[in-house]
Amino acid sequence: MTTVGGRDEVQRSDASQLRVVGRPLPRTDAAEKIAGSTRYAADLALPAMLHTRLVRSTLPSARLVRRDTARARSLAGVVAVLLGEDVPHNEVWVDVPGQQTEVRALKARSQVLATGRVRYHGQPIALVVAESEDVLAEAEALVDVEYEELPGVFDPEEALGEEAPRVHEDGNLLAEWHIDSGDAATALERAPIVIEGQYRTQFVDHAYLEPEAGVAWLDDDGVITIRASTQVVEHFRDIAAILGVPQARIRVIAPYVGGGFGGKEDMTVEPYLALAVLRTGRPVRMVWTRQESLLARPKRHPMRLRYRTGAENDGTLVAQDIEILADTGAEAYLGALVLLYSSVTAAGPYRCPNVRVRARAVYTNHPPCSAMRGFGAMQVVFGCEAQIDELARRLQLTPDEIRRRNAIREGDRLPVGQQIVTPIWLGETIDQVLRAAGPRPEPSRPHCRVGRGIASNLQPYGRLVWLQDTAAAWIGFQFDGSVTLRCGVPDIGGGQAASLGQIAAEVLGVDPARVTVHFGDSARTPLAGTSTATRQLYMSGNAAHLAATRLRDQTLDAVAEAAGRARGALRLGPGGVEGGGEPIALPRALELVRGLGVPLEVLATFHGPRGRAVARDLAAERVFPDFTVGTHLADVEVDCDTGQIRVVRYLACHDVGRAINPQSVSGQICGGAAMGIGSALTEEIVLESGINLTAGFFQYRIPTALDLPDIEAIALESGAGMGPFGARGIGEPPIGPPAATIANAVRDAIGVRLTELPMTPERVLAAIRAQAHTDPPRPAPTGP
Amino acid sequence: MTTVGGRDEVQRSDASQLRVVGRPLPRTDAAEKIAGSTRYAADLALPAMLHTRLVRSTLPSARLVRRDTARARSLAGVVAVLLGEDVPHNEVWVDVPGQQTEVRALKARSQVLATGRVRYHGQPIALVVAESEDVLAEAEALVDVEYEELPGVFDPEEALGEEAPRVHEDGNLLAEWHIDSGDAATALERAPIVIEGQYRTQFVDHAYLEPEAGVAWLDDDGVITIRASTQVVEHFRDIAAILGVPQARIRVIAPYVGGGFGGKEDMTVEPYLALAVLRTGRPVRMVWTRQESLLARPKRHPMRLRYRTGAENDGTLVAQDIEILADTGAEAYLGALVLLYSSVTAAGPYRCPNVRVRARAVYTNHPPCSAMRGFGAMQVVFGCEAQIDELARRLQLTPDEIRRRNAIREGDRLPVGQQIVTPIWLGETIDQVLRAAGPRPEPSRPHCRVGRGIASNLQPYGRLVWLQDTAAAWIGFQFDGSVTLRCGVPDIGGGQAASLGQIAAEVLGVDPARVTVHFGDSARTPLAGTSTATRQLYMSGNAAHLAATRLRDQTLDAVAEAAGRARGALRLGPGGVEGGGEPIALPRALELVRGLGVPLEVLATFHGPRGRAVARDLAAERVFPDFTVGTHLADVEVDCDTGQIRVVRYLACHDVGRAINPQSVSGQICGGAAMGIGSALTEEIVLESGINLTAGFFQYRIPTALDLPDIEAIALESGAGMGPFGARGIGEPPIGPPAATIANAVRDAIGVRLTELPMTPERVLAAIRAQAHTDPPRPAPTGP
Repeated sequence: MTTVGGRDEVQRSDASQLRVVGRPLPRTDAAEKIAGSTRYAADLALPAMLHTRLVRSTLPSARLVRRDTARARSLAGVVAVLLGEDVPHNEVWVDVPGQQTEVRALKARSQVLATGRVRYHGQPIALVVAESEDVLAEAEALVDVEYEELPGVFDPEEALGEEAPRVHEDGNLLAEWHIDSGDAATALERAPIVIEGQYRTQFVDHAYLEPEAGVAWLDDDGVITIRASTQVVEHFRDIAAILGVPQARIRVIAPYVGGGFGGKEDMTVEPYLALAVLRTGRPVRMVWTRQESLLARPKRHPMRLRYRTGAENDGTLVAQDIEILADTGAEAYLGALVLLYSSVTAAGPYRCPNVRVRARAVYTNHPPCSAMRGFGAMQVVFGCEAQIDELARRLQLTPDEIRRRNAIREGDRLPVGQQIVTPIWLGETIDQVLRAAGPRPEPSRPHCRVGRGIASNLQPYGRLVWLQDTAAAWIGFQFDGSVTLRCGVPDIGGGQAASLGQIAAEVLGVDPARVTVHFGDSARTPLAGTSTATRQLYMSGNAAHLAATRLRDQTLDAVAEAAGRARGALRLGPGGVEGGGEPIALPRALELVRGLGVPLEVLATFHGPRGRAVARDLAAERVFPDFTVGTHLADVEVDCDTGQIRVVRYLACHDVGRAINPQSVSGQICGGAAMGIGSALTEEIVLESGINLTAGFFQYRIPTALDLPDIEAIALESGAGMGPFGARGIGEPPIGPPAATIANAVRDAIGVRLTELPMTPERVLAAIRAQAHTDPPRPAPTGP
Repeated sequence: MTTVGGRDEVQRSDASQLRVVGRPLPRTDAAEKIAGSTRYAADLALPAMLHTRLVRSTLPSARLVRRDTARARSLAGVVAVLLGEDVPHNEVWVDVPGQQTEVRALKARSQVLATGRVRYHGQPIALVVAESEDVLAEAEALVDVEYEELPGVFDPEEALGEEAPRVHEDGNLLAEWHIDSGDAATALERAPIVIEGQYRTQFVDHAYLEPEAGVAWLDDDGVITIRASTQVVEHFRDIAAILGVPQARIRVIAPYVGGGFGGKEDMTVEPYLALAVLRTGRPVRMVWTRQESLLARPKRHPMRLRYRTGAENDGTLVAQDIEILADTGAEAYLGALVLLYSSVTAAGPYRCPNVRVRARAVYTNHPPCSAMRGFGAMQVVFGCEAQIDELARRLQLTPDEIRRRNAIREGDRLPVGQQIVTPIWLGETIDQVLRAAGPRPEPSRPHCRVGRGIASNLQPYGRLVWLQDTAAAWIGFQFDGSVTLRCGVPDIGGGQAASLGQIAAEVLGVDPARVTVHFGDSARTPLAGTSTATRQLYMSGNAAHLAATRLRDQTLDAVAEAAGRARGALRLGPGGVEGGGEPIALPRALELVRGLGVPLEVLATFHGPRGRAVARDLAAERVFPDFTVGTHLADVEVDCDTGQIRVVRYLACHDVGRAINPQSVSGQICGGAAMGIGSALTEEIVLESGINLTAGFFQYRIPTALDLPDIEAIALESGAGMGPFGARGIGEPPIGPPAATIANAVRDAIGVRLTELPMTPERVLAAIRAQAHTDPPRPAPTGP
């Protein structure tokens, strides 16, 4: 990875003085992961442990006529078979914010175990608890469920029709958002250039290596403790509500998570494990099969996007009119929020005076859709950046010219009304990828054409401001000067925990190898919020920074007093307490501090910016804390005989603010780009009348290392972010541009615009054929 | 149990307003303990877990000529056999405070695994690590140790001789303490009455149900985590020193402990578990057999006591001259501190202007002696209270008269120089037992004689002030108003955790069932210090009280602001926030608090009183934070044919300050008295030339429920202690008086003074016979 520095004038901290931050330290979890010894959620066997599995609906829409567990229960080794009626609070209510003109949340109802009817293929109906995994399989088959099939709806546009079968009683519209900035209709009428397009994205799975899994047990003091693969230890509150017990009686531990990507933001195994423990009092393990994971865990929303973009003849944007229709599947989950992200970012990282957005999320009898890396802000890039690319082509501008001309800057307002308060370096990200790209490749074979595309994106980091996000950290010196940091962040593979250690080591002047980070424990590490929304480095990083800074200051205050040195001269560094005389080794200094009765511990809470909740008609001073931008560049080769797209070269540059650990940043950028390339080219959950046909990784094709190009990550360090040392978040941003980048490159290569994901060979060939019938070949457009 | 109230003038809090404190709540751990489902330290199986066992010395004093592990290592299933040379830091240095005139600590050396020589029977020499417990036993036998026997010393007086074999190179005197208050020699010369006596106590084992045990593994971020049966999670520092790793890399978790009594104050399995994990990287379990536990874990110091007590003719004490010789066994451990407790309390709860104490702890080739409930303050009661009893007899005073006349009071100074700063209600404790005792029993058979005795004691609570004791607690409201308290106290069966919950519930106005206490985790619960020294209710109770009070105050401040109510009117109670209008339910009130950005969490540290370290010649303004007193009464029946002592009735009254949970207080008083009765009558570790002959509970006879009388506990609530709500500590005090109480009752019954523990039938018969030869029968003395 290349790390490129920011402009001096905006750097909030002087990088040259950083000792630990910015060093590409091997992550503390690296060795064990390479050795395969990381103990993931289910890698724990407890004495007398039971096993549990869900019986799931085989139909996408049906009334449950009969659910008979008698035969299953009579099987030797079966301990319990639970139905919805056995769940203390089987109804779960999900917030659906902003759907009325007053700021008041709607609630959508869901069930832990379905009782009256099922709404999607794979919906949980019964929970089998048994002495062994072998018994489970047998018992599952003995649970007798009789269905009466009901008509379903499998297309979001049809679902909006008056006569469509209702997925939920109160209608199929889950949520809608409107943005009206300026007057897009009039501006479009008057615009000399208008580009129109329709785009479709697909059902995408998170496809992490570690499936949904966990172990739970009744621990000391009657606390039900759930060690689960999750991004959100705060679900202890939801579990408490389902079980009807005080929140203090539920503890969720997230050990290292083998991939989350949003798929472990909603609960998966947690309530079922907790129910089984509550019922049996024994330890319980649950591990979903890959098929279950693909079948029934929430997916990325497929979206239908309709863009109209108006511009002046010089390429200056004057209007964007955007319609978004998202298939949210059969349950609400986080659908309304995903759609909000789409709405706020749909116009891209550009200045545009007139923007209209109409976004709807619609129930169908498809698997539920919810959070996935990019969280709604990803899908719209495929539309927005196709428009920008086509606009450039129409005006014979290079893709970088059009973007530079319209790039949003600090002080501008987004269509939603939020002012950008940190420097936005879109132009620099374009510079970086163009500079690094080098000459365009030559086709490797005669029937191949090559092309280059770029695409940019705008992605928030940090949660919606009305959620009043906080993160807390508790840090302490041990007597020997080593440091223990506790912060409830789940480490979902992004190096979340290790980065916090690096921040603390920087502030406290100690060797990072002497800092331990305890993370992901809802009861015994301070709550740090969700490992979602590209928020942990920003929120928990700031919490760790705040706690460490306070610890440093109170330590130095005390040493100054005890040793009679001028406070101003003192600092913490590798020598211990430095300045004002001979360095005082840290253990000795801490002895002085303790002698004054000053604690070696600090618990600190960082508060993100707070704002008011939004209404359906979005217009807010602030929706997110901040944003970051990035630009990707792809060189592709399209085989015109087979339709195969080969990505030859791939570059991704993002403003990361500050690369706390460049290795982790590189991992996030390369991983996000790779995931985006998978979405662009091969990945899709295939459904037929609501039946999920995707049973495993033979059908669901994620790119392997051999399928992928070398991805070059470029971390632009503006130093201007709101995180510690000027960092921005980087977890989600890199997944935004790949599909658009590749589509733009394909357009460049073969003159054809692909508008539907994934861009399979079949679709490439079909597009080539359609183009041949309708359009005369056009001159190869000017690439960057 | 009877709870009797304190005098109003000294009650620090108004008990009538207490809602939760003082309620005999069933302990949160009660149900699981009764069901047998409590998961003790070793009740955890981890995948790929190894098992480990120590090879121990078969001789009490020998040079290790050869230690050959080759055969053991070649056995299938043996993973490693470690010797002292394999331990990164095999030498352990133990503080021996105050042994020089300057305030400087001596250090005594010990070894994790013996290399050059062994000093006691059972000393660890090698550590075998194997795949199964079966393999362990076989491998242990294959470790080839060749000894060259060395002369040993098995008597503390002999050990002080010039020619005695040296247990350690620097001589056999581990520690000595002197107290010289006034001029005891002159006062004794002038005293009209002088009582003299010599007394002996024995080697006593803690005999807890749960043996030394634990499981350890390498957890997230490379932290070696040790789940062990321990009273001291802070040993993580000692383990780090042995392993040569930063303290932050070691975590000790103490789950519910099945009895500690001081025997788990020093490390037991911890360093061996940690070494095995460090060596193998795999989870490891270690459980000591009962024989190992009896053989080689530190015991209660046997002491030889020599008392001379001088009094005026009216019974007023004028002088005490006390010599104490303690057999500290072969290793230092906490021997110097145990002896310090003996020295400070040897003169009992009495005013005496002239006191001389000479106390020595001496190495022998016996098993090491260290902490046990009472911690040196127990043994001396047997001497002191025999003297007081004999003095009363000589003067024809009742036992209560003599004690009331000399009872120490608030404002008095102990011989060591410490002023008593809280009310001392010795007279009330005597009143209570006499009032409850009723008439003396009649002998059940003709050859039996009955007698009544009482004895009082003085016991500190809280650690030595120069240790600058602290305890921290971290408390938080959950959104639903339930409360999570984290406090690193190990719960060793005394209900330490549950009491903290009760304190927090009182302060925060919530139902105690909605308070969860997370305890005993050195990394993830704030360090609360050792569960020793009768300090947890005082220290951690105050920490919990402080944290809860701050949380309450900041919550009410915020609610006042958010709801526009007068702060002074607000309080937390069952209705939530009460006062100044309609009650605001807690969840709603907490929403208001969060809305203002006020955290729902507090981390607070309580500091005990601090003082200067002591020198060998003890003279200090303060040695302990405070003391408490108690009085026991026993009616015994002695069978003059068999020598059997039967305790017919037993009463124990202590000033507990405040009974936070009367059930727990009763448990402590009854348990302590029962343990003291065991020590008085039957318990003894038997050694023959350093060979420990006590292999199990057939030889080591602890009293069963059938052996014990009903013990009536009387909790005197002075409300005057330094703990929360005026509580004092009660963990150790009840073990002090029983031996003296019974000895005094036996003296009353048969006119014979027993001076050696345990008071077995053989000793009773021998004493009766000796008395018959030397002394004319004396009139039955006046009992209380």
